[in-house]
Amino acid sequence: MVTDVLTGAFAPVVTPFQSDGSPDTARFIAHCRWLLEQGAGLAPFGTNSEANSMAGTERMELLDALVEAGLPPARMLPGTGACSAQETALLSRHAVAHGCAGVLMLPPFFYKGITDEGLYAYYADVIERIADPRLRLYLYHIPALSDVPITHAVIERLLKDFPGIVVGIKDSSGDWDNLQTMLARFPGLAIFPASESFISRTRPLGARGCISATVNINPGRISRLVDQWSSAEGQALQSEVDRVRQIVQGYPMIAALKEVLAQGLHDPAWQRVRAPLTRLSVAQAVALHTALEGVGFALR
Amino acid sequence: MVTDVLTGAFAPVVTPFQSDGSPDTARFIAHCRWLLEQGAGLAPFGTNSEANSMAGTERMELLDALVEAGLPPARMLPGTGACSAQETALLSRHAVAHGCAGVLMLPPFFYKGITDEGLYAYYADVIERIADPRLRLYLYHIPALSDVPITHAVIERLLKDFPGIVVGIKDSSGDWDNLQTMLARFPGLAIFPASESFISRTRPLGARGCISATVNINPGRISRLVDQWSSAEGQALQSEVDRVRQIVQGYPMIAALKEVLAQGLHDPAWQRVRAPLTRLSVAQAVALHTALEGVGFALR
Repeated sequence: MVTDVLTGAFAPVVTPFQSDGSPDTARFIAHCRWLLEQGAGLAPFGTNSEANSMAGTERMELLDALVEAGLPPARMLPGTGACSAQETALLSRHAVAHGCAGVLMLPPFFYKGITDEGLYAYYADVIERIADPRLRLYLYHIPALSDVPITHAVIERLLKDFPGIVVGIKDSSGDWDNLQTMLARFPGLAIFPASESFISRTRPLGARGCISATVNINPGRISRLVDQWSSAEGQALQSEVDRVRQIVQGYPMIAALKEVLAQGLHDPAWQRVRAPLTRLSVAQAVALHTALEGVGFALR
Repeated sequence: MVTDVLTGAFAPVVTPFQSDGSPDTARFIAHCRWLLEQGAGLAPFGTNSEANSMAGTERMELLDALVEAGLPPARMLPGTGACSAQETALLSRHAVAHGCAGVLMLPPFFYKGITDEGLYAYYADVIERIADPRLRLYLYHIPALSDVPITHAVIERLLKDFPGIVVGIKDSSGDWDNLQTMLARFPGLAIFPASESFISRTRPLGARGCISATVNINPGRISRLVDQWSSAEGQALQSEVDRVRQIVQGYPMIAALKEVLAQGLHDPAWQRVRAPLTRLSVAQAVALHTALEGVGFALR
């Protein structure tokens, strides 16, 4: 039984693929285990997981595999948002049944110009379809990709109507004003910025940590920063993780993360991405590794 | 066996829902039958069908029902594009197995900033997964909603590598320059503008007709216009259908189409939409009906 909301640095876990394009369960479990050992939590099936390039069955089978491998569902926040309420509810029920700490839920992201009324009605419909008091729902605000912003009015109404069910939000807007405003307006909401660059500024205001792409390659330092932001070491850590983030986000993020893992693990299989994404060019990869070496970064 | 590409006015068929939110098969069949009787073709499971708010199973069951009801697959161009190659291939194989004239395929629409290489690789992957020489693939260019434009370079490469398989495109960009350029550059491609307002201008340049939301409520006139664009009656028809289109597109399109059907058929059940969409307000509905009466429009 889940009783509280989450804290920490969560990795939207990148998904390794086999040469035939199918998910690579063994590498996936190994990567997740390493992230947990480093102190991070798992947010599999997020944007950076290429989850929207995967079938629902593939996502559920990978989650089954994680749990069967003995990894703790209490540290898992799988992404379950699809375009349709049915698929979103199906994936969410599966995660809840496994005892996951929560689910991270995109808005329905095909139709644009959605009203607050319509977006509220969608989330209410999904919650009613899931119909499980163990559900802990984290909203996923990522307007650059969804083009369906989750407005404060919708958040307020969901918190009022589904207390204890709607408990958090990941804010991928990168908008400091939005973060600040939400932290002030929704003190009971577990707010996770989508970048570790906000940790020192948002932890004192109540943010719970971060759910950030680069946790995939920098889990130890970012996790320590979430805990130690107020110390002298915290200030040094913030600078250190910022430098890595700054370099990596100069490249297509998912391909860059996989390139860093491939290089650091001496395992080129990690370079594989699913279409429509493409891997880094050789020139990009060389430049990325050179820049990371320049700031003293090492994967392990 | 499909041997040629399509011509005509196609309706991206709006989907009726029952009071419990499930698809209303009986009303769906009746509406499709009427559209065919009026001379239109069927493009079910498009944007205006709320297809992206439906589960794949719902879409396949509705197509099964149409075919079982005796409606001709040779006049059907179902939408089959989902975010993942697997689901897109699954829906497409189902349509091909039913003998549908073609499938209308969105690009994968979650990830943005996609390269031509990645988009080409996605479509190639889907075609290989479908693995059926009967496939006739119509690309679906709708950058306002997908934010993944299908570039001319991608079209050219697909035509070269999959001749006879990639045969057409629906252009929902509303961009006259794009239409003109494609008509000149790809004479073998079956090009369908997404609005009847382009018929008189694009038929002489080789366009095959249109796949347009408003065919749902104006199928007879738009179908006749596709055939008779060059006649005196064609000019009058163009003006007439333009006036209706102009009015309807001043409202949220899907809700407006359903409102017109509900009013014209004296059947309020047609007003139902799925979240995140919302039906028209009473004030909007009154204004819409008044404006349509003002130009002499009647559904039947």
